[in-house]
Amino acid sequence: MAFNMVASHAVWPMENDAIFGLAAKAKEAIDKYGKENVIDSTLGALVDDDGNLICLDTVYSELKSLPNAAIAAYAQVAGQADFLEAVQDACFKEYRPKAYIKAVATPGGTGAVRHSIWNYTEPGDSILVCDWFWSPYVTISEEFGRTVTNYEFFNDKGEFNITSFKEKFESLIDRQKRLVTVLNTPANNPTGYSLSDEEWDEVLDIAKEKAKDPDNKIIFMVDVAYIDYADKDRRKFFAKFSNLPENILILIAYSMSKGYTMYGMRSGAIIGVSSNEEIAKEFYYTCMHANRANWSNGTRGAMSVMTSIAKDPAKRKAYEEEVAKYRTMLKKRANAFVKSAEECGLKILPYRDGFFVSIPCNNAKQLSDELIKEKLFVVALKKGLRFAVCAVSEDKCKIAPAKIKEVMDRYK
Amino acid sequence: MAFNMVASHAVWPMENDAIFGLAAKAKEAIDKYGKENVIDSTLGALVDDDGNLICLDTVYSELKSLPNAAIAAYAQVAGQADFLEAVQDACFKEYRPKAYIKAVATPGGTGAVRHSIWNYTEPGDSILVCDWFWSPYVTISEEFGRTVTNYEFFNDKGEFNITSFKEKFESLIDRQKRLVTVLNTPANNPTGYSLSDEEWDEVLDIAKEKAKDPDNKIIFMVDVAYIDYADKDRRKFFAKFSNLPENILILIAYSMSKGYTMYGMRSGAIIGVSSNEEIAKEFYYTCMHANRANWSNGTRGAMSVMTSIAKDPAKRKAYEEEVAKYRTMLKKRANAFVKSAEECGLKILPYRDGFFVSIPCNNAKQLSDELIKEKLFVVALKKGLRFAVCAVSEDKCKIAPAKIKEVMDRYK
Repeated sequence: MAFNMVASHAVWPMENDAIFGLAAKAKEAIDKYGKENVIDSTLGALVDDDGNLICLDTVYSELKSLPNAAIAAYAQVAGQADFLEAVQDACFKEYRPKAYIKAVATPGGTGAVRHSIWNYTEPGDSILVCDWFWSPYVTISEEFGRTVTNYEFFNDKGEFNITSFKEKFESLIDRQKRLVTVLNTPANNPTGYSLSDEEWDEVLDIAKEKAKDPDNKIIFMVDVAYIDYADKDRRKFFAKFSNLPENILILIAYSMSKGYTMYGMRSGAIIGVSSNEEIAKEFYYTCMHANRANWSNGTRGAMSVMTSIAKDPAKRKAYEEEVAKYRTMLKKRANAFVKSAEECGLKILPYRDGFFVSIPCNNAKQLSDELIKEKLFVVALKKGLRFAVCAVSEDKCKIAPAKIKEVMDRYK
Repeated sequence: MAFNMVASHAVWPMENDAIFGLAAKAKEAIDKYGKENVIDSTLGALVDDDGNLICLDTVYSELKSLPNAAIAAYAQVAGQADFLEAVQDACFKEYRPKAYIKAVATPGGTGAVRHSIWNYTEPGDSILVCDWFWSPYVTISEEFGRTVTNYEFFNDKGEFNITSFKEKFESLIDRQKRLVTVLNTPANNPTGYSLSDEEWDEVLDIAKEKAKDPDNKIIFMVDVAYIDYADKDRRKFFAKFSNLPENILILIAYSMSKGYTMYGMRSGAIIGVSSNEEIAKEFYYTCMHANRANWSNGTRGAMSVMTSIAKDPAKRKAYEEEVAKYRTMLKKRANAFVKSAEECGLKILPYRDGFFVSIPCNNAKQLSDELIKEKLFVVALKKGLRFAVCAVSEDKCKIAPAKIKEVMDRYK
């Protein structure tokens, strides 16, 4: 091509999404060899033991029984008022922080991450993200002319690396005076790690120290996409967001994709938590403007489903029981994987909750390619392999670690 | 507030959407005085004579009969392959241009407009829009640090003002060497105007002249949000996008909001049309990157509905007949409004197709406020009033012009 029609900031490699590509290959293998002979651990969606996407009955029977107008009508730009209440309850449950809190509807968690980075950083700023991360954090940052700085998520003992966090956090805030830090916890994608309450205290103490300089603007983007599959007490950290200094703002990316199995409905929210009423208000109007300027308003039917379920105690109970059933299923699968890994000596990162387990290695792409020959499909990351326990039956979770170990040993 | 937490480019007035606010007032009046006594012409959605939102049966019976997984699953980042074919057919029908054409799914037409402005202009650029415009064009431009330049849509004779278009187009392209021009036609919001085929020729001739300079990059964003309510031959202009110079790129914002009454489902597409295969490819990958970085992927259920209907001749026929029924209803209402306006001497802009009629005046806000007292709710624009025939029965469309004229005369 002799020239670009797109503007200088909008030239990108002409490539397709790697994970979707791998998932397509896995599907081909299933068609060829039969699903009993293939382990497809690619996509981050909950799948039953027969390989079918799990769609919560309580959610879809509600969606399909809504009056058409509750799906068809435009939502308010910021989201329906009752949804914006319900989504805060769904997120915080009994651990709502004592603070000024506002919410704005977004398409999934992605919309919330996007709003955080666009609205709370200056062009050229660097965003702080750990070195085991969901790759769209980088895509989003780069799209808007921002960069990403990584700290090491784990130290040599396999514990949360507070030293690395502190070093990078302090050098970035000193240089930029404004910093968005992404924390994808609990049930981190791709590792399944969840910060403990003590680790949260350490993180917030470091931030509070830096908040003593009133020129510093400290923003935490807490991505809780997988929170509904974490243990109940994994929400306790929310209460720590009470009474923070005014120049620490908490943004929470809440997604209906996983907790409501509504991946394709594109619904979620960004929730802003501040000790200062005006900062919370500014958050609301800035995100509303960004909504109008990017996608206009959110998916009304998904909002209707959440509020209908929230308002009806019987529906709510049924929904929560259905989620709990799959949370248990997921836990069994993950336990099986972790136990087998231990037995065969496969080193994995500390798993706590959620859809994924990660296996550190230096040659992830090579191993992923080799594992395809073994009919095991696993996503290659920069620092290792991501195994999606959400997508693989307990039986297969038991046998997968030994297969991975065997191929790793072959390429040592 | 002593300081902003948001970045400097993300500070916006703390205000709610004016149209939604007026719609809420109209609803209050209906509750108080009864719907037969109120004319609510605020929202741009098709409403039946009883004031209920029209939700196409053929669309919602299809949505509700889809397997849950066809709603629940993530869509591909660029959109499902069969949807991207179907949406081109839905847009062009028999007037598909001979060119390289690619489509990418977006949340409604807004997502497509947003991608056009973000990807095809440089920071600080000005976008060309006529002076009767959908206000989010400005919201979107400002969000991204772009400005809007207006040309006059109509000359003194009430015809399309090609002289004003030419003057502004040429001065902007000479200065910027890159220009995104928005054309919201057919069935313009807010005027109901549709460019004739001859007017399209004049516009394209002006562009082709400027395209002789190979350094000029000329982009037309054609917003066809209301096209399914325009006459059949209003699609003819699409064929003019065949064999354009390589430095003229056509982007089309197609929305499922109106044609499928799926406002709240947030589905549409941006369609790129170029004589150069590489430019079309660049368009596709740039918009795919922007999808990933803003909302990840589109609403799967809406895509499923469009493709299911497109693939089944009986469903397609039923859908088209249902739309045609409402197109006729709309035409009757608009004809009633235009005829009454003529009879009472209310000056309106030339209406051709679509949801709205506009009434030019200098004191729109004052008139809109006064009309509220008459229980007539109509949106105030900078240059006049917007009356939504889509939302008002034929009987009320007959009586509204005289009411408006009366109040206008009072404040002359």
